[in-house]
Amino acid sequence: MPLRKSKRRSRNEALLRYHNHRNQNLLAQPGKHQFAVVLDHLKAGFNVAKIFRSADVFSAQAVHLINIGPFDPAPAKGGFKRVPTRFHETFATCFEQLKTEGYTLFTLEATSGVSLFDVHFPEKCAFIFGHEERGLSFNPADHPEIERVSIPQFGQTESLNVSVAASIVMYEYTRQQQT
Amino acid sequence: MPLRKSKRRSRNEALLRYHNHRNQNLLAQPGKHQFAVVLDHLKAGFNVAKIFRSADVFSAQAVHLINIGPFDPAPAKGGFKRVPTRFHETFATCFEQLKTEGYTLFTLEATSGVSLFDVHFPEKCAFIFGHEERGLSFNPADHPEIERVSIPQFGQTESLNVSVAASIVMYEYTRQQQT
Repeated sequence: MPLRKSKRRSRNEALLRYHNHRNQNLLAQPGKHQFAVVLDHLKAGFNVAKIFRSADVFSAQAVHLINIGPFDPAPAKGGFKRVPTRFHETFATCFEQLKTEGYTLFTLEATSGVSLFDVHFPEKCAFIFGHEERGLSFNPADHPEIERVSIPQFGQTESLNVSVAASIVMYEYTRQQQT
Repeated sequence: MPLRKSKRRSRNEALLRYHNHRNQNLLAQPGKHQFAVVLDHLKAGFNVAKIFRSADVFSAQAVHLINIGPFDPAPAKGGFKRVPTRFHETFATCFEQLKTEGYTLFTLEATSGVSLFDVHFPEKCAFIFGHEERGLSFNPADHPEIERVSIPQFGQTESLNVSVAASIVMYEYTRQQQT
C-alpha cells in the first residue's frame, strides 16, 4: 500500500500554498476584460479555487473575496497567483469600492432576475455570488441599484454548482464583449 | 474530534449509490433539449457527476459514457438518476449510435476548432469531451464529419476544467435554441 499522508499534513501544505500564492498575488496584473467577480462568504473550498481558474481563463480585472478564509489554491491552476484579489470583511466595503470604480453590479439569483439569455452587459460589470447554501450575505432589495440575473434552468436538479454558474456568467459576458 | 469514516467505507457507500442511481436511471426520461453529452474515457470521478448535474439542469436527451467505471454520483445531485445514460466500451459503438439517431457530433478542443462564439448549432447535437489529461480516445482527423469547437480562452491557465467546459457548451447550445 502507498503511504497515505496525514490529513493534518495535507492541510498544512494547502495553507502554505495559500500564503505563497497570496504573496505572489500582490504582483498580479488585471486581465483584459473589464469584469470583476465577487465571492460573498463562499465556503473556503474548491469552488473558490475553481472560480479563480475560470477568472484567469476569461481574464478578469479582479476577484473580490468577502470574509473567505484560507483555501487550497491547487484547483485554481495558478489562477490565485495571477488574478488580482481584494480582501474584504463585509459586503459594504466591497460595494463601495466597486461603485467608486464605476462597476455595474449584478447578483446571480437561482430563480428571480433577468434571464442571462436576455441581459445586455455594460463593459464594467461585477458579478456577485453568494454562499453555496445560505446565499448572499445581504438583502438585494436593500440595494436597488444592483441588477439581478439568473441562468435559465430546465431540469429538476436544485441548481447549478456555484463555480459552474460563475464560469457561465464569465463566458456570457466575454461572448457579448466579442460579438 | 469527530469520528472519521474509513476510506473503504466511504468508497463502499459511493459504490452503493452508483448502483442505486444506475438502476433508477433505467426509468429516466429524455430532457426537452435535443442534445447529448459524450464522456470519452473521463476519470470516474467528480467531473463525471458534475456533468450529470449540469446535463440535468440543461435538460439533455442523454449522457453517453465510454469506458467509465463506477463513480460517486453524489455531486450529480440526482442527475445520474434522471438523465438517460448509455454505456459503451469504445467510441466506435457510441459514434454509430449517435449517427444513426441523426446527431451532429462536436468535439471540444482546447485550441483548434471553431470558436464557440461563432458556431451555430443544429437542433440535434452531441458534444464529446475527452479525458482530463489524455484527451480524446480517437483521432478527430479520422472522423471528418465530426465538427470541432473550442471555448475562447484569454488567460494563462492551461484550460478550463472539463465539467466547467461541458456546462458552458450546454449553456451556449440552450441559449441558441431559445433566442
